[in-house]
Amino acid sequence: METNDIYPVILAGGAGTRFWPLSREQWPKQFIRIGGDKSLIGQTVDRARELSAGGTAIVVAGRELSEKIRLELLSEPLHFVVEPAAKNTAPAIALAARFIRDRFGDGIMVVLPSDHVIKENDLFREAIAKAAGAAREGFLVTLGIAPRKPETGYGYIRRGREIGEGVYAVDRFTEKPDRERAEQFVKEGSYYWNSGMFIWRAGTFLEEVKRHLPVLHDVISAHGPADEGLAEAFGAIEPISVDYGVMERSDRVAVVPCDFSWSDVGSWSSLDEVEETDHDGNVSFGNVVAIECRDSVFHAGSDLVAAVGVKDMVVVDTEDATLVIPKERAQDVRRVVDLLREKGAKERIEHRTVSRPWGSYTVLLEGEGYKIKKIVVLPGKRLSYQMHYHRSEHWVVVSGTAKVTRNDEEYFVYANESTYIPKLAKHRLENPGMVPLNIIEVQNGEYVGEDDIVRFGDDYGREK
Amino acid sequence: METNDIYPVILAGGAGTRFWPLSREQWPKQFIRIGGDKSLIGQTVDRARELSAGGTAIVVAGRELSEKIRLELLSEPLHFVVEPAAKNTAPAIALAARFIRDRFGDGIMVVLPSDHVIKENDLFREAIAKAAGAAREGFLVTLGIAPRKPETGYGYIRRGREIGEGVYAVDRFTEKPDRERAEQFVKEGSYYWNSGMFIWRAGTFLEEVKRHLPVLHDVISAHGPADEGLAEAFGAIEPISVDYGVMERSDRVAVVPCDFSWSDVGSWSSLDEVEETDHDGNVSFGNVVAIECRDSVFHAGSDLVAAVGVKDMVVVDTEDATLVIPKERAQDVRRVVDLLREKGAKERIEHRTVSRPWGSYTVLLEGEGYKIKKIVVLPGKRLSYQMHYHRSEHWVVVSGTAKVTRNDEEYFVYANESTYIPKLAKHRLENPGMVPLNIIEVQNGEYVGEDDIVRFGDDYGREK
Repeated sequence: METNDIYPVILAGGAGTRFWPLSREQWPKQFIRIGGDKSLIGQTVDRARELSAGGTAIVVAGRELSEKIRLELLSEPLHFVVEPAAKNTAPAIALAARFIRDRFGDGIMVVLPSDHVIKENDLFREAIAKAAGAAREGFLVTLGIAPRKPETGYGYIRRGREIGEGVYAVDRFTEKPDRERAEQFVKEGSYYWNSGMFIWRAGTFLEEVKRHLPVLHDVISAHGPADEGLAEAFGAIEPISVDYGVMERSDRVAVVPCDFSWSDVGSWSSLDEVEETDHDGNVSFGNVVAIECRDSVFHAGSDLVAAVGVKDMVVVDTEDATLVIPKERAQDVRRVVDLLREKGAKERIEHRTVSRPWGSYTVLLEGEGYKIKKIVVLPGKRLSYQMHYHRSEHWVVVSGTAKVTRNDEEYFVYANESTYIPKLAKHRLENPGMVPLNIIEVQNGEYVGEDDIVRFGDDYGREK
Repeated sequence: METNDIYPVILAGGAGTRFWPLSREQWPKQFIRIGGDKSLIGQTVDRARELSAGGTAIVVAGRELSEKIRLELLSEPLHFVVEPAAKNTAPAIALAARFIRDRFGDGIMVVLPSDHVIKENDLFREAIAKAAGAAREGFLVTLGIAPRKPETGYGYIRRGREIGEGVYAVDRFTEKPDRERAEQFVKEGSYYWNSGMFIWRAGTFLEEVKRHLPVLHDVISAHGPADEGLAEAFGAIEPISVDYGVMERSDRVAVVPCDFSWSDVGSWSSLDEVEETDHDGNVSFGNVVAIECRDSVFHAGSDLVAAVGVKDMVVVDTEDATLVIPKERAQDVRRVVDLLREKGAKERIEHRTVSRPWGSYTVLLEGEGYKIKKIVVLPGKRLSYQMHYHRSEHWVVVSGTAKVTRNDEEYFVYANESTYIPKLAKHRLENPGMVPLNIIEVQNGEYVGEDDIVRFGDDYGREK
């Protein structure tokens, strides 16, 4: 397989609410672990890296999300293309196409959503190889998944004549069908699920954008990525998906039928497509006791989840929120999130355990004037050199060894010892050892919000 | 109302599993707050206290539970009759009858289960007054509740001829009926729910025990409460309920029909009898978001519980366990508890927040070699003077003022300060102030179990 000209592009924008409370506004679906040990975006990056000779991938997302992905996948050599605003897939992909053309020349883009699950990686790579061949000849190629059931939640693609080995012209794209039509599509054998994975030359795509979305083309031609005018011009364009904006309008589209097992894991109810079920059809994570339950999803965070006689139900328990919803209503999770947004509830936004490039912290308890955290610092990592205006901090080392900087002092704190960081003291916490450092932090002050932090130095570029 | 001869007896034994995870083996149903601001036993004691001129009540329970009730209701002037073994209600009531006869003479016993909810207290008192009148004449009187629906979970009593104002002879006791018979009973108008509340002279009851349960009578006649032989003899008797053992066999039984709203709150599904429902028939406690849910029970502890489109379901979230069960299967909670027992799971036994006579503690986190607790000490209270073999403790005062004794020192620790208690140091924590003292305790050691404690002095008699 010729890989030197392949540039994977991972579409990582979007902050779905459909996996709440496991996903949050500040921790969207692509970060959660489904269908594998890594996060969905971690799995996607792994898949992408294998395709490109450079072992890299281009991630497209908004600024805040890009930063979060960078910290989450710190060891991955990723390029980031920042969307100045969320404008759906066509503008996002156009930005990536221009980035590739400017930086690498006219390479083959492999566009991958960041939050899908694919099981047979070898079949996936074969399909990409076929698609890349057609892309080199100037086609806009999409991967079509052989439908395993009459799914009404996906768009379908009907293949036309064969234009290469395993590559077909597209006869037509169809909207999400009703049940009856979906059954007909599956029976007919020439329809495929529209997977949202695309393969084409950057140049081909930009030509098609010029033809079908001239305003978008003007914007990205007139303004470079660092150009201050880009944000404003980009902000003014109409959001449009690549399916509507380009694929359905172009006469150069092709489809590669695929037979690997694929899921966009669109909701809690689709988990049984990507996770193992027990003999009663249940999917369980964590400490779950299920008695006479069928076809349900149980997710236990740190606590026990017990259910008796429950059918077709989703039960998700996290550190600070529990969801119970029938599978058939799984899409209505967003109504909970909407309601929480109206109420300004914190359970919508953030988890109690927050991942950081140096490790993680968990809020154990928060009350008037205090907050208790468990902090885990990974071996060799350190937090930023920082200061707080409104709080002091007691640190009790539970295991591991801490190196503490406090104003002009540097000292070590060992397990079963404690230290105190007064308000306004410049300080830094570091794990110089070979095992994780576990600390209990008791914050005291008139304000204990995360934003009371002044960073003087940071290993992860966050001092701005 | 003549009250000088009335001695309320509260049957507080029994460790039901039907309200797990809100109730636990170490925190049974009578301690939980249902149908009022106080615990069920607290409500029962309030009701009982009003009946007796002495303002006291006699509590019958096993040793461990008695101690727990004493600490929970520390300000109540209760008498305790300790059951050497759990032998159902007839032996428990016989012990109480002998206690009353020995201590107060032949008074009227008002026997009340500790875990029922009664709404109209005035009607309850009227009924007790009527019943006490008949009891003084030598009857064994039971309260019969006018059935509001064809309940199949209760036994029924059919009334016979009127033998006094509002007092009837008992025509017969019936077992829990099937649906059809229950409907017939309700229609007939002469049937009442068997409430398990009894009124009689201690002497009358003991005479009937002598007649119908002679072995039990021999045991309690031969051995006084402090007699070492009591435990062995009591342990050998057959368990039997007062209904089977005495009421159904006696020819001196009477019933007082009552029309107050009463429930034995037998399971999660009966909560709507004693708690207010919203217009969709849901009962909610705590931070609950319910969208398009009907006839369900939602209990949120400290965290958020969200549900969409759920019907006839019970969802209970506590600090360390979540239960989801359809209402119609509510009795099967015990199957979860049985399973947890087999697994030796701690969620069966104890809550993460544990009530103590001096306040409470909550286990925030527990790991290899450490445990983090939030400790609340009430104003003027103090923990025992104690020592640990296997752990040291860091205390950070979050609010309030702590008085600390550590070996020969005595000192104060203020908010935002910390102190350290090494292994083997004799120590005591006290709140000398007027507001609750909040402390975060970080325990470190090779063993952090609650039983690593040596008490040298205790305000609550626990140093033994």
